[in-house]
Amino acid sequence: MAHKSRILIKGGKVVNEECSERADVYVEDGIIQAVGLDLQTPAGTRVIDARGNLILPGGIDTHTHMELAFMGTVAVDDFYTGTKAAVAGGTTMILDFVIPQKGASLLEAYERWRNTADRKVCCDYSLHVAVTWWDESVKREMETLVQEKGVNSFKMFLAYKNVFMLSDHELYSAFSHCKDIGAIAQVHAENGDLIAEGAKKMLSLGITGPEGHELCRPEEVEAEATQRAITIAHSVNCPLYVVHVMSKSAAKVVASARRNGRVVFGEPIAAGLGTDGTHYWNKDWAHAAGFVMGPPLRPDPSTPGYLMDLLANDDLSVTGTDNCTFSVCQKALGKDDFTKIPNGVNGVEDRMSVIWEKGVHSGKMDENRFVAVTSSNAAKLFNLYPQKGRIAKGSDADLVIWGPKSCCVCFRVISAKTHHQAVDYNIFEGMVCHGVPLVTISRGRVVYEHGRVVAEPGTGRFIPRKPCAEFVYKRIKQREEVRAHASVHHCYSKFTVAYDL
Amino acid sequence: MAHKSRILIKGGKVVNEECSERADVYVEDGIIQAVGLDLQTPAGTRVIDARGNLILPGGIDTHTHMELAFMGTVAVDDFYTGTKAAVAGGTTMILDFVIPQKGASLLEAYERWRNTADRKVCCDYSLHVAVTWWDESVKREMETLVQEKGVNSFKMFLAYKNVFMLSDHELYSAFSHCKDIGAIAQVHAENGDLIAEGAKKMLSLGITGPEGHELCRPEEVEAEATQRAITIAHSVNCPLYVVHVMSKSAAKVVASARRNGRVVFGEPIAAGLGTDGTHYWNKDWAHAAGFVMGPPLRPDPSTPGYLMDLLANDDLSVTGTDNCTFSVCQKALGKDDFTKIPNGVNGVEDRMSVIWEKGVHSGKMDENRFVAVTSSNAAKLFNLYPQKGRIAKGSDADLVIWGPKSCCVCFRVISAKTHHQAVDYNIFEGMVCHGVPLVTISRGRVVYEHGRVVAEPGTGRFIPRKPCAEFVYKRIKQREEVRAHASVHHCYSKFTVAYDL
Amino acid sequence: MAHKSRILIKGGKVVNEECSERADVYVEDGIIQAVGLDLQTPAGTRVIDARGNLILPGGIDTHTHMELAFMGTVAVDDFYTGTKAAVAGGTTMILDFVIPQKGASLLEAYERWRNTADRKVCCDYSLHVAVTWWDESVKREMETLVQEKGVNSFKMFLAYKNVFMLSDHELYSAFSHCKDIGAIAQVHAENGDLIAEGAKKMLSLGITGPEGHELCRPEEVEAEATQRAITIAHSVNCPLYVVHVMSKSAAKVVASARRNGRVVFGEPIAAGLGTDGTHYWNKDWAHAAGFVMGPPLRPDPSTPGYLMDLLANDDLSVTGTDNCTFSVCQKALGKDDFTKIPNGVNGVEDRMSVIWEKGVHSGKMDENRFVAVTSSNAAKLFNLYPQKGRIAKGSDADLVIWGPKSCCVCFRVISAKTHHQAVDYNIFEGMVCHGVPLVTISRGRVVYEHGRVVAEPGTGRFIPRKPCAEFVYKRIKQREEVRAHASVHHCYSKFTVAYDL
Amino acid sequence: MAHKSRILIKGGKVVNEECSERADVYVEDGIIQAVGLDLQTPAGTRVIDARGNLILPGGIDTHTHMELAFMGTVAVDDFYTGTKAAVAGGTTMILDFVIPQKGASLLEAYERWRNTADRKVCCDYSLHVAVTWWDESVKREMETLVQEKGVNSFKMFLAYKNVFMLSDHELYSAFSHCKDIGAIAQVHAENGDLIAEGAKKMLSLGITGPEGHELCRPEEVEAEATQRAITIAHSVNCPLYVVHVMSKSAAKVVASARRNGRVVFGEPIAAGLGTDGTHYWNKDWAHAAGFVMGPPLRPDPSTPGYLMDLLANDDLSVTGTDNCTFSVCQKALGKDDFTKIPNGVNGVEDRMSVIWEKGVHSGKMDENRFVAVTSSNAAKLFNLYPQKGRIAKGSDADLVIWGPKSCCVCFRVISAKTHHQAVDYNIFEGMVCHGVPLVTISRGRVVYEHGRVVAEPGTGRFIPRKPCAEFVYKRIKQREEVRAHASVHHCYSKFTVAYDL
Repeated sequence: MAHKSRILIKGGKVVNEECSERADVYVEDGIIQAVGLDLQTPAGTRVIDARGNLILPGGIDTHTHMELAFMGTVAVDDFYTGTKAAVAGGTTMILDFVIPQKGASLLEAYERWRNTADRKVCCDYSLHVAVTWWDESVKREMETLVQEKGVNSFKMFLAYKNVFMLSDHELYSAFSHCKDIGAIAQVHAENGDLIAEGAKKMLSLGITGPEGHELCRPEEVEAEATQRAITIAHSVNCPLYVVHVMSKSAAKVVASARRNGRVVFGEPIAAGLGTDGTHYWNKDWAHAAGFVMGPPLRPDPSTPGYLMDLLANDDLSVTGTDNCTFSVCQKALGKDDFTKIPNGVNGVEDRMSVIWEKGVHSGKMDENRFVAVTSSNAAKLFNLYPQKGRIAKGSDADLVIWGPKSCCVCFRVISAKTHHQAVDYNIFEGMVCHGVPLVTISRGRVVYEHGRVVAEPGTGRFIPRKPCAEFVYKRIKQREEVRAHASVHHCYSKFTVAYDL
Repeated sequence: MAHKSRILIKGGKVVNEECSERADVYVEDGIIQAVGLDLQTPAGTRVIDARGNLILPGGIDTHTHMELAFMGTVAVDDFYTGTKAAVAGGTTMILDFVIPQKGASLLEAYERWRNTADRKVCCDYSLHVAVTWWDESVKREMETLVQEKGVNSFKMFLAYKNVFMLSDHELYSAFSHCKDIGAIAQVHAENGDLIAEGAKKMLSLGITGPEGHELCRPEEVEAEATQRAITIAHSVNCPLYVVHVMSKSAAKVVASARRNGRVVFGEPIAAGLGTDGTHYWNKDWAHAAGFVMGPPLRPDPSTPGYLMDLLANDDLSVTGTDNCTFSVCQKALGKDDFTKIPNGVNGVEDRMSVIWEKGVHSGKMDENRFVAVTSSNAAKLFNLYPQKGRIAKGSDADLVIWGPKSCCVCFRVISAKTHHQAVDYNIFEGMVCHGVPLVTISRGRVVYEHGRVVAEPGTGRFIPRKPCAEFVYKRIKQREEVRAHASVHHCYSKFTVAYDL
Repeated sequence: MAHKSRILIKGGKVVNEECSERADVYVEDGIIQAVGLDLQTPAGTRVIDARGNLILPGGIDTHTHMELAFMGTVAVDDFYTGTKAAVAGGTTMILDFVIPQKGASLLEAYERWRNTADRKVCCDYSLHVAVTWWDESVKREMETLVQEKGVNSFKMFLAYKNVFMLSDHELYSAFSHCKDIGAIAQVHAENGDLIAEGAKKMLSLGITGPEGHELCRPEEVEAEATQRAITIAHSVNCPLYVVHVMSKSAAKVVASARRNGRVVFGEPIAAGLGTDGTHYWNKDWAHAAGFVMGPPLRPDPSTPGYLMDLLANDDLSVTGTDNCTFSVCQKALGKDDFTKIPNGVNGVEDRMSVIWEKGVHSGKMDENRFVAVTSSNAAKLFNLYPQKGRIAKGSDADLVIWGPKSCCVCFRVISAKTHHQAVDYNIFEGMVCHGVPLVTISRGRVVYEHGRVVAEPGTGRFIPRKPCAEFVYKRIKQREEVRAHASVHHCYSKFTVAYDL
Repeated sequence: MAHKSRILIKGGKVVNEECSERADVYVEDGIIQAVGLDLQTPAGTRVIDARGNLILPGGIDTHTHMELAFMGTVAVDDFYTGTKAAVAGGTTMILDFVIPQKGASLLEAYERWRNTADRKVCCDYSLHVAVTWWDESVKREMETLVQEKGVNSFKMFLAYKNVFMLSDHELYSAFSHCKDIGAIAQVHAENGDLIAEGAKKMLSLGITGPEGHELCRPEEVEAEATQRAITIAHSVNCPLYVVHVMSKSAAKVVASARRNGRVVFGEPIAAGLGTDGTHYWNKDWAHAAGFVMGPPLRPDPSTPGYLMDLLANDDLSVTGTDNCTFSVCQKALGKDDFTKIPNGVNGVEDRMSVIWEKGVHSGKMDENRFVAVTSSNAAKLFNLYPQKGRIAKGSDADLVIWGPKSCCVCFRVISAKTHHQAVDYNIFEGMVCHGVPLVTISRGRVVYEHGRVVAEPGTGRFIPRKPCAEFVYKRIKQREEVRAHASVHHCYSKFTVAYDL
């Protein structure tokens, strides 16, 4: 508790999405009390020196799957090791997914996940809920989740045929309902039919290795589904959020839709921004299998740079990781058949540094855009703003002191040997990072400093979210109001005369 | 029979797709015997003076629905009046559609349609067959149609939910099968789910007039389905033909796919090239209803010019009409509900002149491209070339003497008052045409001259088509051969060492 | 002075670019002292009731030409009437252009313009300076302007051949120099050669009316120059600002460049967002001539909506007006020759309402994006932020109380009869606006309320701007640092062996 | 002479652009006398067996620079070795460039080039003429060249500042004049200003190797100039031909312009289709320098495939080589400064096989499109059709018997060791080619068979070309006729009333 009470961060540059300023930050009881110069603080306030460094809102990872049971095994990073790794990387909030089985209650799945997570998390978290089947009871449970359980986002799958996939007709209904209850619809956009057929074809051709995973679901399979989801969502004026945009083709679809005024948001992930799918062709099976996730990373090596350009330019909006880690041993379940390789990669720890490296250090975005895409936009989209994603009086004291220069201290080489995740490899192995977290503060508690995580399980909280996030719904509602189609008043004179109707 | 035997067309300019040349054309027994200057002809040969005019291959309309029973009524132009109108407009061959009901035999439907058409047609014709449902028997009947009945093209619907629509999974199977049997897959590309929902919504908003027809299926509904069909077809390396490309969005999808090497062909139609969807907002209900077809004409008035630009540039390939005519009285079935307006417009007679006017007269394409898009490409795609679509020794004598200049003779104003179709209005009413047919010859018989059709019902023939049209399948087969995905030879050393697998 | 001292704006919703919040705003001595609820204020503080309304940062018009001497006459709105109109419309700062003649001193022109403006302005202003010729003295004067005169933006013309136009080579030098001195390069992007030739051609065809103005410089003339300027600027890593983006083609060029990571910003103007070039074909010459400006408005009626979509989506960044007004009598100078019609339209008064109407009321953007494009982004680009463009403690009290609802009070029909500008017509005549300023405050003084302007000439101040605006230059500098091209270490072994070099 | 008289090619498949057919070809006195089956031939006719092989029109290389004096040295392949190599590769006609110095007479340069070439050529040839400066005498000489000398194409440079480059204004005049005299305007499209500055910058950074050649003129420098040339040409309704389209960016510009109806044609070259610019980074200087040409090959390795996709799709139209060969010793002139490396690569021998490999063997285009892009389209564009580029009665007997299968005979690995060119390296070294010429016939003479060239210098002829090629000018003229801009009849009532003008 000593960590929690009072902290003054002095001498740094406070970075918000709209601008940066030299200012100190005073924190008390987990809340930012003041931002400015020459702040008065009570005796006993811990002072942290941030000279030469940036002070950022803690990162928000929009997309994790801690300890997910999937493909016959369970992800090795649980809510404890996962959030420990998160704070070590400068991330102070994660949004994980509740994924009920087809036919199962959404509410029960939600409660189970809450029970699992609450005891373990080292930082705040919230939950998206997946809609994997459709009937009236699902509709009712979605309403309950929105009104009583702090959920305002639901994910639908266009992939995973016979498991999670909804038909187009069900998507239409689910999107309509999301709009009605003020939630944002999320989609995993890949064409499940084509993947199923593609996988069969690859195996029949004798392609059983990890490269088959990409070959059976090339990027147009992702782009098609993205286009379809956007079209359906637009037809019911529902805001749409495309999780893990992995390919240039899909990203172009999102970007073009935004230019045409669609209320759609694309989420690239650390893996897609930091590495690529050439690894599937790596001779070492274990290396290749380590990169297997869905949608796959793409073999076109210009993909990460392209996605970063679009992220810099606000064609893509926020960043997650789809962190869902399986050890090399678990991956080996698919040793003879790529369709059995558990899908998932790491990222929750490295996301911030990877994006800094490829985005800020490269000169593609500035520090303010970095904050927007690593926390502020996520907070706005999911209605946590300005509680999260912002350094301002009254906001939660989720903060990172960030070392942006390339010196001996502020310089990290990513490695499985040194990372905090439970998984035994790292897809970013060897990447040099010029931007790293020096100190991470979660609601006023210092949870990471001097390279050590000092967080306790269960100290994070579930953060409920209200529906109708203004960032998303202002336009939706205004359109509802003004874009009523007017009926034409037709006359029938020609009939009367010519056909005596 | 007198018409048939021997004809010498003198003094004209023969136009084929690759070039034009001053040459005479000598025809005997329905076949072109010679093309050149100073031809020797037997006594008794009828000489037709073509000085100052062009000699073109007769038009091929790739898309008609003569006397179709649809939406509770029957199209008024039957195979007799429809083909009479065709030859009056310079078209000497139509491709009509056999559309079996869900669950019905394709072969029986085909035979019935042959029986209906054979007795009535005034020019040659052939038949596409629609695949409106899917099981093993359908697969077998498709094979029979290809091997024994002269069919090499099958149309699948992504629209008309619960009536003709196939699921994505069925499309996958149907496209695979088309590839296997050497047929070309055709699609009506609109998202049937969205149309069904959109129509309900419009009616619930009190929009019951013809404008509702377009509002419930805006162009992105067409573009989405087009993208989806192309993606599925490509995944099985099946050539795809998109019938009635009606919007800029859908045309862009086709054009982009072609640039990416997809074997896909887009068919704009006379209606889409010659007029637009602003008519749905016409105050006169009957006027507005006359333009109702699916997919609808688009309200963006720059659409026809855009489609013509793409047609000129070979982004779109061939032209049809979707000719399916209902009288104003029949249209009135939907007087109080646009979903009941029988869908269909005219075009079979006016297609050639409309494309000349908007394409050649405007300077967008030359006469050679005109021949390509009105006959040669269709002949190639559907494996009729060079029997049809070409003026060369050995080809069928389907010819048009075309007046390309704007003078008193070669100038027509389109009107329902003067057209040869049975329908009582014309969507091109009032259009001035600077290019018109002067004489039409169908397999050696003069069937239209001096403004009069002299054709007899039953004088046209069914033209069987072989599978694996080279124009389409050369690339398909070559890709099949060279694009085998190679499997990577992965090693497992890391496992051995690290995990002792 | 009574207006200036102390004001509390109560009950409104404070809108900044990143979010909106219910808060009061307390102003003292022209500066915002506090933003929040339950603020303590001294006795005598004037309280303004903003319940039901929004409180916005005052608008910044990035592009005006008050009292410009141009084409043989002088714009009728001077710095007094122009800024009076500005505040009546909710704009509290303008950026005007100093345009020296070819060969004339930039510094002298700047001083003259300062002298002209300082005495007249009713709100704050700043100055861009045009570079209309090139030599070493110009370079030196640019440096002086940047270091001593508060100028950080220079405009170059690709149009106005023989008058203001620079050659490509000179552009290269000017852009290089801008980068070196930390300024932003601005361009008027139209191909001056083509305009000159086009105008001659139109006149030779007998086209002398206002439609000739557009016909001689169609949108590809604008797009080409935009592409060229971006290419040249990128080659020297200089940030570029394209003034008055008027066409879909040019806007696409800007948007694509941004997606490719170019540091380029596009400025649409009120005229281009609110009306279109069909007016040039108006039968009434005076009506048509009233819309003549360069680049021209475009006859494609979907242009304004397209530009607004891109503005909403951050493909375009800020908004100005190019306000440069000539009375109908002045326009008549070109009665017989469109090349002599003085170029310019109104906008400074109506910009905010026009953008609200077409952008916010239509549902294309929300109130926060509205603030970004009407003030914050301009302030950031030109290094005035957060002094201007933001409602926060310490910022200048440039504020607008904005009525965003469609009720009797908050509803305006634009008309020359009621506007505050000196010009005798209005290009937005008759436009209904659902968003209007109710009260305008300029550095703490109420300058507009109850429909009346109460500003005095000379009360506005010149606002100097520093170089190297972070919003623009952070990325520029980072790129400079990291994007050094590495030289390859070639070997010459082959030579040595084979050729004995 | 024995070779010349009578040849019957039996058993092959004749390939023209519009279709292929099994047919024999009978040649007499250099002209194709008959194409068909069961041809009657006089005794003594040489019979060549083409069973299993294709018979193609001889290739036309649209772009060569034989023995060009350039950058202080002279290209090593002269008209003799160059055309010998051409026929060894299946090319039977080249179009070379006459390039007068600035200020020099075009006619004199033309005559000198004729004199040089006539004595040496082993196959037919024709000449483009470059316009490197501009005044009235140039205009007159262009007319003379068109009317009396068989030239219908003129190349203008946007690059090579101070050497060949024209200003935009001169381009406007040159394009206008081309249109007036019925010629096609060709452009080398790179921004000469930017190249000059870029080269200085690279050298100042210490980058002196071949990679500097690409770095100083990245692809946007090419794309910008391409866009500019198209815009200027369109403004005067002049057909435009872009030589050596080398980048994806420039190719996109051409393709988009075509979609918008511009009469523009893009020429990729063998080098750009068969290899890429990664070679500039090769450690071996001589290897890297061997690929130096302008515009440079591009380091993006997906470039060749992209260009081939566009070529297959008719977004690009014809293929040349820019064959201009310098030995490794000559290249060494630029050993310490890339700007001094003589620009140029080989290609005239390998073009046909490279395009077959990357285009046809890969499944991107079929054999008919191959003919279109290697000969027919060139013949049409430059008004040689159907004399060249076609296998038909009356055409010149320029023929290739082509082995399209991958067997021991019909299989070649490109190598400097075996090629027929004079240059001592080959940029395609090691490329496996599945399509190769077996026999080449130039105007009825067998000039290549059994791997040996049997051609004599001076046996080729200069082929004059007439202006106003129909393939290009039909649309140009029609547009001229119909696209007259109509003047609006404005009224001045408002003036009269309001201003009493």
